[in-house]
Amino acid sequence: MAQGHSLGSKTGLYGASVEYALHSLLWLIEPREPPLSSRNLAEFQGISASLLAKVMPKLEKAGLVASSGGINGGYRLARGADEITVLDVVTAIDRDKRLFDCKEIRAGCVLFNGHLPEWSAGRTCTIHAVMLRAENSMRKELARTTLLDLVNAVGFPKPFGEDAARWFGERTAAREASRVAAVKTGRRRPAKT
Amino acid sequence: MAQGHSLGSKTGLYGASVEYALHSLLWLIEPREPPLSSRNLAEFQGISASLLAKVMPKLEKAGLVASSGGINGGYRLARGADEITVLDVVTAIDRDKRLFDCKEIRAGCVLFNGHLPEWSAGRTCTIHAVMLRAENSMRKELARTTLLDLVNAVGFPKPFGEDAARWFGERTAAREASRVAAVKTGRRRPAKT
Repeated sequence: MAQGHSLGSKTGLYGASVEYALHSLLWLIEPREPPLSSRNLAEFQGISASLLAKVMPKLEKAGLVASSGGINGGYRLARGADEITVLDVVTAIDRDKRLFDCKEIRAGCVLFNGHLPEWSAGRTCTIHAVMLRAENSMRKELARTTLLDLVNAVGFPKPFGEDAARWFGERTAAREASRVAAVKTGRRRPAKT
Repeated sequence: MAQGHSLGSKTGLYGASVEYALHSLLWLIEPREPPLSSRNLAEFQGISASLLAKVMPKLEKAGLVASSGGINGGYRLARGADEITVLDVVTAIDRDKRLFDCKEIRAGCVLFNGHLPEWSAGRTCTIHAVMLRAENSMRKELARTTLLDLVNAVGFPKPFGEDAARWFGERTAAREASRVAAVKTGRRRPAKT
């Protein structure tokens, strides 16, 4: 019986979520007080705040970042930037993504009557095995680079780093001011946490 | 301005089309007379004939198979099974698929006002560069294995190969018989090519 298969998508294996995660993590390498919120990270980078708000909890769940709640809450790296590899990040976001989506079509051969014969059963399909080797080699490469390597390779000039720090500081101050004003005019109750 | 990004799909990079192509090619290694049609290849493997009918022309366009038309037309390998690698097949099917779908989000930083600064422009994004290295390493691995390696690794037992040859022969004979009968009863005009 023919299985129902369709043509795959045209996009890459890793997309916006992985890109958001990696870029955002670079901004967490330098400890900041208060820590950067997901919203500020998104605004600073010009990326979707709603998507980043789904990405950051995945990084937290995987133990790559830690969050603090409250008005000035935000994210910080949960371990050293030299201890988080690109593979860690990719795995945190897309744990189940595989290079090859094997449907075991070998089992569908008309001569098998629905059961793999002895000479084939219990062995990984040879085609799948090649794909697994390729995936493994890809992952090894991703495990070679840490967040620290990345940020060193980017080589942010000092003035840019200072501009960024100023932007984050001003943003936090502006948010705080607008919150206070809102509380004063009674439009909003004070935040509880 | 925030770009509109969505969460990626949950499938692998390479899917049914690549799987169909690789499995089908293994059946073309042994030259057959008449050559195997896309329809028979699909039926024998229990896979979607309509999807395989889209896959085979891609392999032909890439110079991996050659087709002969006519009643007993079909496909044969266009070069030796030791001269077609898994990478050739993957490229024939999904030339434009990339491991990482880079959207160049670094350019969206609020501090850049829409233009990458000099220290960043003209250089591949560091994150993209890691992904390209990983992709390269994955492709190298796929280039190491040929169709001949695959079929040798599967190790089809001789009786299975004979059963398959018989099945293909009977199928072709049955099709021919039904065509002749159709022509005789006038339900169908003789095929022109």
